[in-house]
Amino acid sequence: MEKLYDRLKERYPEMVEIRRHLHEHPELSFEEVETPKYIAAYHENLGHEVRTEVGGRGVVAVLRGGKPGKTVALRADFDALPIQEENDVAYKSKVDGVMHACGHDGHTATLLVLAKVLNGMREELEGNIVFIHQHAEELAPGGAIAMIEDGCLDGVDVIFGTHLWAVTPYGHVQHRSGPFMAAADKFDVVIQGKGGHGAQPHLTKDAVVIGSQLVMNLQQLVSRRVNPLDSAVLSIGRFEAVNAFNVIADTAKITGTVRTFKEDVRDLMEREIERVVKGTCLTADAEYTLSYQRGYPPVVNHKDETDFVARVAGDVPGVTAVVECEPDMGGEDFAYYLQHVKGTFFYTGAQDASRNEMYPHHHPKFNIDERAMLVAANTLGAAAVTFLKEAVAKEESTVR
Amino acid sequence: MEKLYDRLKERYPEMVEIRRHLHEHPELSFEEVETPKYIAAYHENLGHEVRTEVGGRGVVAVLRGGKPGKTVALRADFDALPIQEENDVAYKSKVDGVMHACGHDGHTATLLVLAKVLNGMREELEGNIVFIHQHAEELAPGGAIAMIEDGCLDGVDVIFGTHLWAVTPYGHVQHRSGPFMAAADKFDVVIQGKGGHGAQPHLTKDAVVIGSQLVMNLQQLVSRRVNPLDSAVLSIGRFEAVNAFNVIADTAKITGTVRTFKEDVRDLMEREIERVVKGTCLTADAEYTLSYQRGYPPVVNHKDETDFVARVAGDVPGVTAVVECEPDMGGEDFAYYLQHVKGTFFYTGAQDASRNEMYPHHHPKFNIDERAMLVAANTLGAAAVTFLKEAVAKEESTVR
Amino acid sequence: MEKLYDRLKERYPEMVEIRRHLHEHPELSFEEVETPKYIAAYHENLGHEVRTEVGGRGVVAVLRGGKPGKTVALRADFDALPIQEENDVAYKSKVDGVMHACGHDGHTATLLVLAKVLNGMREELEGNIVFIHQHAEELAPGGAIAMIEDGCLDGVDVIFGTHLWAVTPYGHVQHRSGPFMAAADKFDVVIQGKGGHGAQPHLTKDAVVIGSQLVMNLQQLVSRRVNPLDSAVLSIGRFEAVNAFNVIADTAKITGTVRTFKEDVRDLMEREIERVVKGTCLTADAEYTLSYQRGYPPVVNHKDETDFVARVAGDVPGVTAVVECEPDMGGEDFAYYLQHVKGTFFYTGAQDASRNEMYPHHHPKFNIDERAMLVAANTLGAAAVTFLKEAVAKEESTVR
Amino acid sequence: MEKLYDRLKERYPEMVEIRRHLHEHPELSFEEVETPKYIAAYHENLGHEVRTEVGGRGVVAVLRGGKPGKTVALRADFDALPIQEENDVAYKSKVDGVMHACGHDGHTATLLVLAKVLNGMREELEGNIVFIHQHAEELAPGGAIAMIEDGCLDGVDVIFGTHLWAVTPYGHVQHRSGPFMAAADKFDVVIQGKGGHGAQPHLTKDAVVIGSQLVMNLQQLVSRRVNPLDSAVLSIGRFEAVNAFNVIADTAKITGTVRTFKEDVRDLMEREIERVVKGTCLTADAEYTLSYQRGYPPVVNHKDETDFVARVAGDVPGVTAVVECEPDMGGEDFAYYLQHVKGTFFYTGAQDASRNEMYPHHHPKFNIDERAMLVAANTLGAAAVTFLKEAVAKEESTVR
Repeated sequence: MEKLYDRLKERYPEMVEIRRHLHEHPELSFEEVETPKYIAAYHENLGHEVRTEVGGRGVVAVLRGGKPGKTVALRADFDALPIQEENDVAYKSKVDGVMHACGHDGHTATLLVLAKVLNGMREELEGNIVFIHQHAEELAPGGAIAMIEDGCLDGVDVIFGTHLWAVTPYGHVQHRSGPFMAAADKFDVVIQGKGGHGAQPHLTKDAVVIGSQLVMNLQQLVSRRVNPLDSAVLSIGRFEAVNAFNVIADTAKITGTVRTFKEDVRDLMEREIERVVKGTCLTADAEYTLSYQRGYPPVVNHKDETDFVARVAGDVPGVTAVVECEPDMGGEDFAYYLQHVKGTFFYTGAQDASRNEMYPHHHPKFNIDERAMLVAANTLGAAAVTFLKEAVAKEESTVR
Repeated sequence: MEKLYDRLKERYPEMVEIRRHLHEHPELSFEEVETPKYIAAYHENLGHEVRTEVGGRGVVAVLRGGKPGKTVALRADFDALPIQEENDVAYKSKVDGVMHACGHDGHTATLLVLAKVLNGMREELEGNIVFIHQHAEELAPGGAIAMIEDGCLDGVDVIFGTHLWAVTPYGHVQHRSGPFMAAADKFDVVIQGKGGHGAQPHLTKDAVVIGSQLVMNLQQLVSRRVNPLDSAVLSIGRFEAVNAFNVIADTAKITGTVRTFKEDVRDLMEREIERVVKGTCLTADAEYTLSYQRGYPPVVNHKDETDFVARVAGDVPGVTAVVECEPDMGGEDFAYYLQHVKGTFFYTGAQDASRNEMYPHHHPKFNIDERAMLVAANTLGAAAVTFLKEAVAKEESTVR
Repeated sequence: MEKLYDRLKERYPEMVEIRRHLHEHPELSFEEVETPKYIAAYHENLGHEVRTEVGGRGVVAVLRGGKPGKTVALRADFDALPIQEENDVAYKSKVDGVMHACGHDGHTATLLVLAKVLNGMREELEGNIVFIHQHAEELAPGGAIAMIEDGCLDGVDVIFGTHLWAVTPYGHVQHRSGPFMAAADKFDVVIQGKGGHGAQPHLTKDAVVIGSQLVMNLQQLVSRRVNPLDSAVLSIGRFEAVNAFNVIADTAKITGTVRTFKEDVRDLMEREIERVVKGTCLTADAEYTLSYQRGYPPVVNHKDETDFVARVAGDVPGVTAVVECEPDMGGEDFAYYLQHVKGTFFYTGAQDASRNEMYPHHHPKFNIDERAMLVAANTLGAAAVTFLKEAVAKEESTVR
Repeated sequence: MEKLYDRLKERYPEMVEIRRHLHEHPELSFEEVETPKYIAAYHENLGHEVRTEVGGRGVVAVLRGGKPGKTVALRADFDALPIQEENDVAYKSKVDGVMHACGHDGHTATLLVLAKVLNGMREELEGNIVFIHQHAEELAPGGAIAMIEDGCLDGVDVIFGTHLWAVTPYGHVQHRSGPFMAAADKFDVVIQGKGGHGAQPHLTKDAVVIGSQLVMNLQQLVSRRVNPLDSAVLSIGRFEAVNAFNVIADTAKITGTVRTFKEDVRDLMEREIERVVKGTCLTADAEYTLSYQRGYPPVVNHKDETDFVARVAGDVPGVTAVVECEPDMGGEDFAYYLQHVKGTFFYTGAQDASRNEMYPHHHPKFNIDERAMLVAANTLGAAAVTFLKEAVAKEESTVR
């Protein structure tokens, strides 16, 4: 493994170079053109089998090892965000209003250089490695689901992925078995009452009162209907019924979010919201429209693979702490891969300690400590190589 | 009219005697036996046409005047209450647990003596008088409805009735055109949720929460669905869900009352309660049973007849004030008579100023100032005689 | 009285002329300049004592009768509204965005011509008549309160006023003793919670939930705290908390109206709103600001004066029906006069039956049947003359 | 370790005998007399240092090993419940209305026989073992807290305990690091409103409405104020306001339970309940009394010790599965020991598969598969012996 680490270290400058190049040329989700070309060319140069336009704009490259064995997939996403960069750096985005503000440039650079290094060690590899370069992670329905349908996981035994995580200290690897990132859904209710003069409530169906009743009733979903050992959040960001003071509202618009970690809890929430809206409107003889839009499913890491990565990460150069973390309420379409094959998703700490203030992901001043790319490459590489080795060893011991 | 007043005054001792006799021998609603016999015998002695067992246990007597004309009905109820008398009077109830605690003994004495006096003036009477002695006013469905079906109002042009009213000063006559006494209804809801352990709400349908939601939602009937110019009350006297602290309730029992002055508001309340119960239970996927039991309808006095009595009362001996009063939230089955013929119901003040404390109707220490009977007889008598006289005069003037 | 009616009929064309002149030259509340000049000149021509700038822009004229007696005040308001007229009439408003859309032009024309006719009969008048031409009825705090403070009611025994009422058929006079028009108040609540991410409710104070709870709790004011025999309305026209779906609201803005007919009920509502807001915010540890702005008090007509006008109106030419009406939830600053002297305010039906559609007051197409001015003049004139006559007669009979 | 298992197996009949003896002679919490005598005598026979009346009625015995080392505590509770046994077994409870319906008889038998066996191996023991026989686990405040204050943990390095768990299959050992059993608290609210007649809400403070509002408001504690990643339950078992249908309630009694796994969440719930009760009552100008009674704190297992037991249990005869389980919402005063020393509490599956139906703990037909005692003794014994051995080994390696 030392060879892997040494070669990655050697090639760290290239990693930085690639990342900065991509940073200067960000492309929005589902609109990526140059980035996949760049990626495909890189892998073709290495002699990998390359498939482009996978599930739309994705790129899949395969490295076949010198020895027979399992197949490991490593995934990096490559899309950017509709944000105007405010960083004052040499490699600042050259595209107006578009920015790599979530670190996907770093993910891609990490995976490309790791591919080159693994390629150099291919004779020793006891199996194959699939590099999944995914487009459109930032925008539901995301690229993962289409790439899977287009076969990117065919023959894959396990998948690993990481996110460079700017709110976690450099050197830390954060993992968690089971729910890791939440499903983040959105719902819209329009209550159609009957408006009228504020002095004549009996001729109306007061949408403000019905809406308020709905908000109160929805509190019971979390307090009464979800298993207290599970997590769920329902929050309403918007209650809009803006009329003159002496008018009774005709409609009220209510919009909110639901966060869950399990599909059955998510199903429950969607079903119960409908029930509560229906019952509440029936109470007042009002009409409604309800739409529930699912974001990504929860990222649920597999236990053995998570424990495996945590174990491997302990010996990785640059890793100063391997920490079990709390689940996060944000979403990631890595979730879909884990619905098809075993694997795990983890955070690689990338907080830039040199800055006075910390800017979160999606902020115009977001940036990473670039050294975290090397840590990520080390960890993903070690995980891939070790997984293949142990799989062979295990099989042999079983055969015997 | 002076003759009427003088003769009633002369016979006041008999009025007291009859009232005290009845007071000693109270009979419960729908169980009256001796009282109607006593009444029938009194009228038969006077030579009136008497019909017994009218609509059950009612007695109707007719006095035909010496001259042709209209027909006036005067009504007195005669049932008592299941209350143990606590008054220390010579004429205390001799029946254990039964008491004339609402003054119906006085109503009957008033009407009987008035009948005797009017009988003595029958040659001058320009029409007929029907004496309606009603059983079972205290217990829904009451005696009035059956007596009407049995013909007690046949041929009647107008009806007058009064209640000796122990919370109003002696000497006062209180009247009101339109709504005078409320419809008093009762409703019962049993919410059938699903019980369980307090630590596992997700396996239950929490009847306490559903019931509480129902109570809150029912507030909107008065605040939003009833015309603010109308009156309506919905009160819940009983919320019963009594379990161990760590148990989630299977059922909640909710019982309440609805008070209204108009039939359409009453209908609205009944209909909307059903709607709110249904919607609220749907919200929580719970079952329910709902029963709505109508008490008497509202007593709605006719305007001309009320103004007429108010005018007549102004000249009645013993009357010191004729006052328009607020509607009262209690109920009376006099309401049914007013649905069939014109008429009015009024209060004759009977507060016993000689006592230190005032006891309300239905109290074990309830009593009346007996002199109020004379005021009531004067007023009812004057109303009847004057009505007949004016009707003839009016007809003559019309004819001419 | 026939003389009065005849002369008014003769001068009806002048009434129309004045009304149309004023209609062409409307002036906004508190900005009236030409209108009061016009009015003052008219009265000065008649030789009345005229006081201008009463309480701001009001005009008060006094006609002293030939015989001693009481003093009757008659009131007409003269301000217009910030509405762009959409009527296609020869006398359409010549002022952009300003319109007599509530009939005050008609009120003024009525009162001026009535003043001229009464002036012609002054030798017969048994007392004095005060003509109160009020500015600024449309805009709280209104002109009445300042004119009263400036002495417009000094020496006045009784006041009468009417509103040409476009939703009531021509020929009808509507009156009501007691509450006639409501107090219309406004309240604003801003709930200051603590915003945050939709996935982290525990770090926030959710203003949408607190606001909804407030709306629900406020329902209890009408359902539980107001005497069911009284009328009160509380309606919320505006619930504004408009954020992204995944954000928890920092603030919620709630605005509503309160309508009542009695000052004590009004006080109760104001006090209880404060209590409910305070308690609800305490429940969630949130802050709030609350402002309660009182509009005009309720118009409460005096019984004897109302009955008097109803009686007088019965004999007035053009009046086809004298009807007791339900209270109206709108407001009028005539309310203030009735707090100081006896009197009554009534509606004179002015519905324009010639039009296909009926447009309510304050509508850009509002108009009146101008003949209603003659009915109003007849009624006010008859009320004034009769009142003075009967007052003298009564006094004489008392003296004797 | 084979010696330990073999000897325990040999002595299994004695275990059954002791358990059945105790089962026949159950004693209620804080009223234990014969049971502690029996336990103390057993240990004295073995020559252990015995201290009685520890923290009340507890018994602590110490076995000093032949070699120096750490000190392990093993705990078993010995109180019974106020339940009338309904099992038809030869060893049925001989005390009317008292029953070992939670398996504490088995806990005690397990620990006594284990003590005897360990005593027989004392020369090999590399440290000491403290046997904590605790009284009064079933009744808050429980016996643990007083025994700790009385020194039962002095010198103890680690503590292990298990519960024979009748809802878990025989052969299974269930463990969990972190929150294992919940804090179970109770709260009582009495809302003091102001009663009155159902028709006169404005003269009352309606305790049913206030109580319902409180129930609704309390839903927000779980839905809004607790971190969604934490668990909390608030359930109300009792809402009692039982009056005639036409009466408005004077008081409402509300009783509920709160379950939490963390002390800070528990503190939050207690504090927020007070806030919500206070705010809700203020809203309606009502009074209240609130009492919050804390039950046992949550049982929070230490990670290393839990992993250790899970590891050890894997090799224990009779154990067919070692399973990480979900936290349980019930309470245990083992919690207190874990606040003072490292350790873990786990379940030993004791479901009696021979019965047609499964009866839960505290049921009159509760029973266990007695073989589970042997599994428990094996596991506790192996944990104790292994812990001492590894501690010595570790120390030696550290020293070197």
